[in-house]
Amino acid sequence: MALVVQKYGGSSVANAERIKRVAERIVDTRKAGDDVVVVVSAMGDTTDELLDLANQVSPLPPGRELDMLLTAGERISMALLAMAIHNLGYEARSYTGSQAGVLTTSTHGRARIIDVTPGRLRGALDEGAIAIVAGFQGVSQDTKDITTLGRGGSDTTAVALAAALGADVCEIYTDVDGVFTADPRIVPDARQITRITYEEMLELAACGAKVLMLRCVEYARRFGMPIHVRSSYSTNPGTIVAGSMEDLPVEQALITGVAHDRSEAKITIVGVPDEPGAAARIFETAAGAEINIDMIVQNVSTEGTGRTDISFTLPKTDGPTAMAALSRIQERIEFKGLLYDDHVGKLSLIGAGMRSHPGVAASFFQALAEAGVNIEMISTSEIRVSVVCRDTDLDVAVRAVHAAFDLGGAEEAVVYAGTGR
Amino acid sequence: MALVVQKYGGSSVANAERIKRVAERIVDTRKAGDDVVVVVSAMGDTTDELLDLANQVSPLPPGRELDMLLTAGERISMALLAMAIHNLGYEARSYTGSQAGVLTTSTHGRARIIDVTPGRLRGALDEGAIAIVAGFQGVSQDTKDITTLGRGGSDTTAVALAAALGADVCEIYTDVDGVFTADPRIVPDARQITRITYEEMLELAACGAKVLMLRCVEYARRFGMPIHVRSSYSTNPGTIVAGSMEDLPVEQALITGVAHDRSEAKITIVGVPDEPGAAARIFETAAGAEINIDMIVQNVSTEGTGRTDISFTLPKTDGPTAMAALSRIQERIEFKGLLYDDHVGKLSLIGAGMRSHPGVAASFFQALAEAGVNIEMISTSEIRVSVVCRDTDLDVAVRAVHAAFDLGGAEEAVVYAGTGR
Repeated sequence: MALVVQKYGGSSVANAERIKRVAERIVDTRKAGDDVVVVVSAMGDTTDELLDLANQVSPLPPGRELDMLLTAGERISMALLAMAIHNLGYEARSYTGSQAGVLTTSTHGRARIIDVTPGRLRGALDEGAIAIVAGFQGVSQDTKDITTLGRGGSDTTAVALAAALGADVCEIYTDVDGVFTADPRIVPDARQITRITYEEMLELAACGAKVLMLRCVEYARRFGMPIHVRSSYSTNPGTIVAGSMEDLPVEQALITGVAHDRSEAKITIVGVPDEPGAAARIFETAAGAEINIDMIVQNVSTEGTGRTDISFTLPKTDGPTAMAALSRIQERIEFKGLLYDDHVGKLSLIGAGMRSHPGVAASFFQALAEAGVNIEMISTSEIRVSVVCRDTDLDVAVRAVHAAFDLGGAEEAVVYAGTGR
Repeated sequence: MALVVQKYGGSSVANAERIKRVAERIVDTRKAGDDVVVVVSAMGDTTDELLDLANQVSPLPPGRELDMLLTAGERISMALLAMAIHNLGYEARSYTGSQAGVLTTSTHGRARIIDVTPGRLRGALDEGAIAIVAGFQGVSQDTKDITTLGRGGSDTTAVALAAALGADVCEIYTDVDGVFTADPRIVPDARQITRITYEEMLELAACGAKVLMLRCVEYARRFGMPIHVRSSYSTNPGTIVAGSMEDLPVEQALITGVAHDRSEAKITIVGVPDEPGAAARIFETAAGAEINIDMIVQNVSTEGTGRTDISFTLPKTDGPTAMAALSRIQERIEFKGLLYDDHVGKLSLIGAGMRSHPGVAASFFQALAEAGVNIEMISTSEIRVSVVCRDTDLDVAVRAVHAAFDLGGAEEAVVYAGTGR
């Protein structure tokens, strides 16, 4: 008898009908003899509706109260899911993040899990019940106030509970069949990946693959918890995220997949004095404004001027804050101007096999050149090559690279409607 | 500096606009120098919407999960109210029933408050914050599960918190100006009562006056906590519920008011053997089925038959259960039949002065006779006379009695739209 943690996202429980379908899936697992802990997100648009209410009463609601408000969402979905399971003749009990022992920092809106003390969940399992836990939420260890974990928080809740309970696997149910070699909406013959290491999955998630959030994969790697990504709507075997690159056999696939990202913008700081400390002051400013910087390129200083241009990419959502923060230091740094470009796209090629095959980057750039894609920025890691190009070139670039490395499968991938949280 | 507990019902916080109005009222009290604890119900129709969702997933949802679901309602309203107060520049913190220390029995759906340990509320007040507490909910002392208090639960929460905190007054904000000598929708010149004792208010509440629930008044009397009933929509001084009949001056008003109730039905058990124990077995059956019986009348045995009829009133909502339970014992008790009549109305005249004025009942029946109202059942207490009549006669009867005892005021009462929870 195994212990399985299952996580269902907001679109999987968007209405009463879907909640009943999910209940059947959970009961099927229980019937097979496994103990089950389920982590559930808020139903469909509930979070957006609650945010809308908050904006109607206050332009800048305090984080503590916003967390109190938003956590009502999972409270509703988890209670309904427990009722639906009861109705199938199985005992189910719902628990808030606080009741499930999810202890966090006190940073409202993006708290981090410090510890998990799942005593009540163990008690429920011991009595033969299915435990339903609210995702995305916890309680501050210091202040005892209710907190939320931020984007992708439900996935993190699931992995953290699985680790704390010593579960055999953490199943993340979503609206796609698993992890693919590229986005099937762009590359019709994208192939589903059967198994992928934590490191590769981390690079994919960091480079725009939306199927799993970075934090959740980091957590799983830290505790060695296997993640099984599966579809809520099919019986496809899905993708297993487990194991380290170090343990991979030599005959592994060279390349895992292609990720792309349209959510970033590029800021160029023009005419920065080419002297020690200028770049440091610029990126200190960005860090102080809590801007997440991704890629950075500094041009060679234009001869004779003593000045250079620095470009970096960042999430579009951080764009206005970053531009304002940089404007404030223009006089002090004495740079000439700021350019903001949100029509860029990022493409990344990821593969653990890349480490021992120096020819990969060459083939990658060759494929892009043949497709007529102009490269604006480049960055690399041990198992990844990323480029920034025009966003209008991105689809062509993804297809070209995917084909060049022969990643396609025989069949077309199935794409489901809807999005997860 | 006083400590004031204020309770706002669902219609007072039905939308963002009303929440902002309530926030202003609360801040006004704080500005006047008082410490404020606010108890709030779920917004408008939230509870009904959640119940509807529950019915979509399960015909008979388990009580534990239903309570978990419904308590999401106050979580939303209290967080929004705290945000709205923040927006006016005052510190406000929301607390669930559990966080506020409302410890209850574990009977889901109608738990009773066992104890209140408001340590976190005291802490918030000590730091100058306004504490917002979810009404209608608590946490089971034994199982640590979330519970709800049943109908009128938010009023009870408010009085219980006021008592535990040693508040100076518990203000119940509602959609009427206060307690009236009769329902102003039936009696246009009904007069608002300035001050009323706990005993009289208990009788009014038990006899159908909807402004305060019986349990809340019982709680207030037990702890000697004054209740101030006020309108959320006006600055009318409202009604104070405080003090005992025993302390009333001799020159007090004879009669307090007229209450009516359309929510009861009458069951008649026909042809009950007129022998010891028959009635006992009937009412044991009713008690076993958790039926709340109100008035009982047993006719004189019809001469020669050795049989009698027994009639009693009960809430219409208990009607089907009671009829089924009684049918099951028909053979054993050997009664002849059951009649169910849900077209009855109850009218009650209440007044502490009644104790020392034996003529009140005579004038009461005289007024009903002159109005052509046929009386079907009668019951009395020390400070109350109640009758059951046809529901179609009820309005006429209320107006006749109200006029006979000269209860009317000079001005017409103001009636507001909407209903509270």
